[in-house]
Amino acid sequence: MTPAAIEPLAIAMGDPAGVGPELIAKAWKARELHSLAPFFAVGDIRAIERVWNGPVARIDTPADAAQRFADALPVFSVADAGEITPGQPDGDGARCALQSLELAVGLTRSGAAGALVTGPIAKHQMYDIGFSHPGQTEFIAERCGIARENTVMMLAGPTLRVVPITTHVPLHSVPELLTVELILSKARATARGLWRNFAIEKPRLAFAGLNPHAGENGAIGREEIEIIAPAVRQLQSEGVDAVGPFASDTMFHPRARAAFDVALCPYHDQALIPLKTPHFDDGVNITLGLPIVRTSPDHGTAFGIAGKDEANPGAMIAAIRMAACAAHRRAELGGGPFGE
Amino acid sequence: MTPAAIEPLAIAMGDPAGVGPELIAKAWKARELHSLAPFFAVGDIRAIERVWNGPVARIDTPADAAQRFADALPVFSVADAGEITPGQPDGDGARCALQSLELAVGLTRSGAAGALVTGPIAKHQMYDIGFSHPGQTEFIAERCGIARENTVMMLAGPTLRVVPITTHVPLHSVPELLTVELILSKARATARGLWRNFAIEKPRLAFAGLNPHAGENGAIGREEIEIIAPAVRQLQSEGVDAVGPFASDTMFHPRARAAFDVALCPYHDQALIPLKTPHFDDGVNITLGLPIVRTSPDHGTAFGIAGKDEANPGAMIAAIRMAACAAHRRAELGGGPFGE
Repeated sequence: MTPAAIEPLAIAMGDPAGVGPELIAKAWKARELHSLAPFFAVGDIRAIERVWNGPVARIDTPADAAQRFADALPVFSVADAGEITPGQPDGDGARCALQSLELAVGLTRSGAAGALVTGPIAKHQMYDIGFSHPGQTEFIAERCGIARENTVMMLAGPTLRVVPITTHVPLHSVPELLTVELILSKARATARGLWRNFAIEKPRLAFAGLNPHAGENGAIGREEIEIIAPAVRQLQSEGVDAVGPFASDTMFHPRARAAFDVALCPYHDQALIPLKTPHFDDGVNITLGLPIVRTSPDHGTAFGIAGKDEANPGAMIAAIRMAACAAHRRAELGGGPFGE
Repeated sequence: MTPAAIEPLAIAMGDPAGVGPELIAKAWKARELHSLAPFFAVGDIRAIERVWNGPVARIDTPADAAQRFADALPVFSVADAGEITPGQPDGDGARCALQSLELAVGLTRSGAAGALVTGPIAKHQMYDIGFSHPGQTEFIAERCGIARENTVMMLAGPTLRVVPITTHVPLHSVPELLTVELILSKARATARGLWRNFAIEKPRLAFAGLNPHAGENGAIGREEIEIIAPAVRQLQSEGVDAVGPFASDTMFHPRARAAFDVALCPYHDQALIPLKTPHFDDGVNITLGLPIVRTSPDHGTAFGIAGKDEANPGAMIAAIRMAACAAHRRAELGGGPFGE
């Protein structure tokens, strides 16, 4: 079956002094090896030229990207990063990153771009110029008209998908934040997101316990009995294929993780450790619950190696591939870019 | 250099209805492939005969094990497990496991055995017959005259060693249990244990943060700033090679873990997830801080597959190899089995 046609993908460049521009260029260079769908960078063309000698094509509209993509990296150069020194972020760069993100979101919302991929930003620089969202995900959710609590951050590597049920909060606050309602909300959005973006008809959701050994029948904590198990039963009664809670230390080895499509974990590191330990160089962050497809490489700006040609484009390539797959899937489902 | 001679290792069989007997037999069968030092099983000889048709030699003293080892699995049959049905634990089996453990500890303490390896037990069955220790480790510490808080549980796989600073406690109690004193105590015992058992002259200790992103400079929790970093500085001032705290999701991938000899993690799953995700079948639990060498395979009784010839002996073999290596090292250091 030929996949449904999609528009070129928009890649927001991220911080121009980080590894984003280099990764986009390296991904373009590997476009045939990885059968990448046409994409274009959104940002300041000089950020790419600063770190890369290959062919670059300035485009005026996203539609031009498809025809230029075979011979040059298409760049929609819409923002001014000022003086760019790789590895040295500044306010001009942060403003450029924000403009790039804003435009790339708009192009994807409008349907001119088939999906959105975002490069890494420097949060502290962004905060300094007045960016008031915790991260790019919340900004994108707002621009899409979606409450952030209805979105889900899923991290995906080639052999594992994980969802942290709570995210960037202190560990001590996790037990009080973990409620049946929160678990149900994240689980439903996850199941729907796997169907909409990955064509998994009836996703298998596995839940991690909060405590060591998943509480050992209440001997080491009771959240499994009082919160997680009731949520799992409720999901089962709704027809969701949900199992657990399981001891989190024994549910992620290769044989165990083959038994589920996604693991939902009460807290950040419980989800991120098993993902990044084997998939540090090819983990993808995908936001579920949005009207658009949005992925990003699961790493930061890596200022320490920016401009040195050392950055590994594996995660960026994986993010582009995943975005294209999800966009194809949504195009098949129909409903257009505004439908959820 | 020829390693110092050591006495045969004592392997407490664990629960006779679990996979312990089968794993010991399989390890013996692989003795040449893995160059295993001579060992003998301690328990009920029928538990092994029940699941294995290979040669078994009943021995009267540990010294006999060395000469019988080449041709048969030596068994010091000292306990009566009653009727044994693989996969169905009972009180007789628990009593047999306890007797085996008690004797194997005594033989190792006395110097008749070179090191102690313990097979998996069924804790609930043990509690039912009056076993009052949380696990085998605490029992062994008591028999060795060591306070349990002065011992350290280290988990080791071929590419990673981890120490959970707190162990089997509810997650919500971890922040209040984590103190500078506890970290220092665990770290000093770990550094000393790596020197005594693994011949690592100046071990590199890496500390995980408690919160996501190691607290992000206090934005997501302050334990890193107030507790972990001061402990690391104190250790450094004592000459210990200590670094951190680091974000726990990015410190365990292969390149990152090559930079340290052991990771010390505030809580159980933070240490056990990165260990068991890649090393589920060959993880070893070693107790540091004891006058004897004690290891065990890092898995349970696996009653579901007991007696079916399905159990993977990888972790048992690794536990035997590690115990023998550590015993050789201690023999070289001198001081005899009673010295710490």
